Amino acid sequence: MTYCVAIKLNAGLVFLSDSRTNAGLDQISSFRKMMVYEKAGERFMVLLSAGNLSISQSVREILQTTQITDEQDGEPITIWNARSMFDAARVLGAAVRHVHERDGAALKRSGVDFNVSLVFGGQIQGEGMRLFQVYSAGNFIEATSETPYFQVGESKYGKPVLDRVLTPETPLDEAAKCALVSMDSTLKSNLSVGLPMDLVVYEVDRFTTDKIVCIDEHNPYFRMLHDSWGQKLRAVFDSIEDPAWDGESTKAPILVNPARSKPLKKITTRHDKLI
Amino acid sequence: MTYCVAIKLNAGLVFLSDSRTNAGLDQISSFRKMMVYEKAGERFMVLLSAGNLSISQSVREILQTTQITDEQDGEPITIWNARSMFDAARVLGAAVRHVHERDGAALKRSGVDFNVSLVFGGQIQGEGMRLFQVYSAGNFIEATSETPYFQVGESKYGKPVLDRVLTPETPLDEAAKCALVSMDSTLKSNLSVGLPMDLVVYEVDRFTTDKIVCIDEHNPYFRMLHDSWGQKLRAVFDSIEDPAWDGESTKAPILVNPARSKPLKKITTRHDKLI
Repeated sequence: MTYCVAIKLNAGLVFLSDSRTNAGLDQISSFRKMMVYEKAGERFMVLLSAGNLSISQSVREILQTTQITDEQDGEPITIWNARSMFDAARVLGAAVRHVHERDGAALKRSGVDFNVSLVFGGQIQGEGMRLFQVYSAGNFIEATSETPYFQVGESKYGKPVLDRVLTPETPLDEAAKCALVSMDSTLKSNLSVGLPMDLVVYEVDRFTTDKIVCIDEHNPYFRMLHDSWGQKLRAVFDSIEDPAWDGESTKAPILVNPARSKPLKKITTRHDKLI
Repeated sequence: MTYCVAIKLNAGLVFLSDSRTNAGLDQISSFRKMMVYEKAGERFMVLLSAGNLSISQSVREILQTTQITDEQDGEPITIWNARSMFDAARVLGAAVRHVHERDGAALKRSGVDFNVSLVFGGQIQGEGMRLFQVYSAGNFIEATSETPYFQVGESKYGKPVLDRVLTPETPLDEAAKCALVSMDSTLKSNLSVGLPMDLVVYEVDRFTTDKIVCIDEHNPYFRMLHDSWGQKLRAVFDSIEDPAWDGESTKAPILVNPARSKPLKKITTRHDKLI
């Protein structure tokens, strides 16, 4: 599997991907899942991929040469000349559909789903930043201020911290930290997600970035974050009092007791805050 | 969906289940997923269920009357006379298989998987506490000291905190708190898991418990925990410094740049701890 997350903020974009690929548990490899497409000063785009590796590699292979036709002037559109990220996402969708035409039937005969999930975001001169999630059918959705991030792959372990922290106003480096905490939780609980990971932080209207990094187990920042988060989370956990029990009755779970019925108790504390 | 977790500690057992059931997103109902089977002073058993509700309800309906045959003396074994939790889990497996015989073919014709996941744990006089996860085929596995908990249903959101906190030495009420934090994270990120939840805490060698509670949104302890965890997690997140970038080069993600190649930078901080 894989875990990738991309975040769209007012201040810029954050992309993070792991690099583990597995076919079963006994065939684990490291493949990078991030591609950066940049024409400095004009366009900056990042592609993250999850799902069947043969499909996502094929999509990446043909993406730069895939064309769609402009509905107005009939000119060919590629990711390198598209005038909007929406059109660039359409080109990516066309690349996915092209791979489906080529491989879909044969995969189906072998009982393999045509399974690929892509996140594609960036900025093209003349419009704001945009972030898309592209599905196996080549269709796609766009991130909004209500949902400022997309995840693909093993997304559930790392979702709670994103939900707790991210808003469009979150500063860029704080969002990068949030993505790394999200990845750290995923690494801890799922063997199919593994280091190294690739991180890109893009500042709005720059059309380039120098914040591109591959993070392995020796990276001092990630080591610090991994240790601090684990230790401090534990301290927070310890700081919350354990449940106390008293004799008041409350609604009971379904109790099957051939011998007796009994009073049920409830958890109480001194606290009485609102949810 | 559902989220249930059960934990086996040296000090006892903790069981926690939510109560949301959904068929699609427009049909959400509340069904309790916990059953307690107790003969005070002799046996105490708890069953948690996830999966297809018609299957789990059928299993629960017939569990008390399901019999298997003792391989040595030929006597019938039920959950009420089993001499070990292993035998009681075999009875539960037989109940699952019985429902499969009755409904499996018809479900398959309708394109519905025979999908049920059960956690069954407790203690019978004469042996220690045991905890099992029972699958759709009626087979089962047992929790060990290396893996002291089982989850069924939407398990991923709430797994990181269990992995960080639980060991066999964890005190009972601390484990109950951990289960509730795990549930809180799941509730936050997945609409298919919902209140109220049922919690049972069992102390070893008691063969009964008075710590059985239904927790809804008015429960003061859960309100406190929900608020404190969210606020303190945020404070911990804020206390970890954001990544800083310097000009040193490092291994780069795959970079496709038609215009230029460029130096890559890495995240550094003053920290240099070991993972």
